[in-house]
Amino acid sequence: MEYRQEEKENLVYGKNAVTELLKSGTGVDTVFLAEGLAPAVSSYYTALAKEAGAAIKRVHTAKLKNLCKTENHQGVAAFASSVQYASLEEILAVAKNRNEAPFVLLCDGVEDPHNLGAIIRTALLAGAHGVVIPKRGGAQLTGTVAKTSAGASMELPIARVANIGQAVRWLKEQNVFVYAADMSGQTAARQNLTGAIALVMGSEGKGVSPLVKKLCDGCVSLPQSPYRGSVDSLNVSVAAGILMYEILRQRGEEGVQGNER
Amino acid sequence: MEYRQEEKENLVYGKNAVTELLKSGTGVDTVFLAEGLAPAVSSYYTALAKEAGAAIKRVHTAKLKNLCKTENHQGVAAFASSVQYASLEEILAVAKNRNEAPFVLLCDGVEDPHNLGAIIRTALLAGAHGVVIPKRGGAQLTGTVAKTSAGASMELPIARVANIGQAVRWLKEQNVFVYAADMSGQTAARQNLTGAIALVMGSEGKGVSPLVKKLCDGCVSLPQSPYRGSVDSLNVSVAAGILMYEILRQRGEEGVQGNER
Repeated sequence: MEYRQEEKENLVYGKNAVTELLKSGTGVDTVFLAEGLAPAVSSYYTALAKEAGAAIKRVHTAKLKNLCKTENHQGVAAFASSVQYASLEEILAVAKNRNEAPFVLLCDGVEDPHNLGAIIRTALLAGAHGVVIPKRGGAQLTGTVAKTSAGASMELPIARVANIGQAVRWLKEQNVFVYAADMSGQTAARQNLTGAIALVMGSEGKGVSPLVKKLCDGCVSLPQSPYRGSVDSLNVSVAAGILMYEILRQRGEEGVQGNER
Repeated sequence: MEYRQEEKENLVYGKNAVTELLKSGTGVDTVFLAEGLAPAVSSYYTALAKEAGAAIKRVHTAKLKNLCKTENHQGVAAFASSVQYASLEEILAVAKNRNEAPFVLLCDGVEDPHNLGAIIRTALLAGAHGVVIPKRGGAQLTGTVAKTSAGASMELPIARVANIGQAVRWLKEQNVFVYAADMSGQTAARQNLTGAIALVMGSEGKGVSPLVKKLCDGCVSLPQSPYRGSVDSLNVSVAAGILMYEILRQRGEEGVQGNER
């Protein structure tokens, strides 16, 4: 596939280099910590690695030396995964190549890498043409995301944009109708979701940001039981799944094969 | 609400008592470990607590003595949450009281507590009358499940049964049509999912077990894009959400208010 992201593993070592990598927001697969590392240093990198969604491996100093091919590793090393991102244009090109109306999913600050992974997995299976994430203020394509996506993050074009609002504006210029998933909208099943469409999912705590919501063409919601008690929202990856499959259902599942065939 | 689960916090202390509690499979909210605890003992309880989905708090020995009102705590204590489970009969009674056709979700070995929590949350919001989990071979109502469910596990009746197959048989006797979520079934949107219905979701790795599938009245699936690459299944909580909202859509969202009202 043309837009398959290649995951090249690049080794980085030394305290500063690893700190910089972990704070950069780009994907980090694994962080290696030498067994003899001072507890404070070890705790520092463990916390950073967890935040970056990287796996942590404790290794013997000799093994680290072997891996880095030097003794100057300072007890810390990491494998960076250089993910190749797609552009918005490339996502729409995928739709065009398939002779389908564009179907794009935008994440406006989805923070939990498990949620982002599940959203990418569902987007691939629901026949979406790509997922858009922000460069800052949201989960990035880390190892956790790749794993939770069950490999979908390697199959589906993912665009990383400086500003979700600008991406919404650009999509509207390309005649894509952009919906925000928001309680203020009509129920999905009662709206016409056919044609060129983009769906914006907001963050776990705050939903779609007011600025982005204002830029969208409309809002779409899901019904909630009156017996729901104090629970007033779905998990964002579940809500994204329900909405994407409602879009698919309204498209008549065209170009998408049922499992029964 | 009649079937609201009460979460009473019961303190348990001493190594054996806490070990037994953590291994029992019933809910544990928090495990307290004294700061002076031997590293091996601390690691042991940390691992057990993580497996049980309990939060871990490191406290000063004086605080632990204060909490337990004794010095015989051996450095370990835990708050057990005694969840009150509903019966299958009680779940159907909820439907009857609301004058609605029964809508039940069964988990046949859903293992990840985050998935079980998300499923319970969605079931509550989609207007299902209860969730059924097995006593063995699946996630139990732990603190992680309660947290991931956003509190829904306290609102929705949860039945815990010795055997999911027997629960399916019993539901069929009550004229509930039982579907297994399985690739072999027709696409959900092309099936009639109205009336008294139960939906069985399988485990993350294996899906619905062959024995349970055989007992069900039918199977229901979701379409998948032909461009899905090597990814061949949705996350179980996402799939459950899409199927439950398709059931809700076909029911005409009766008794369920849209967000726009």
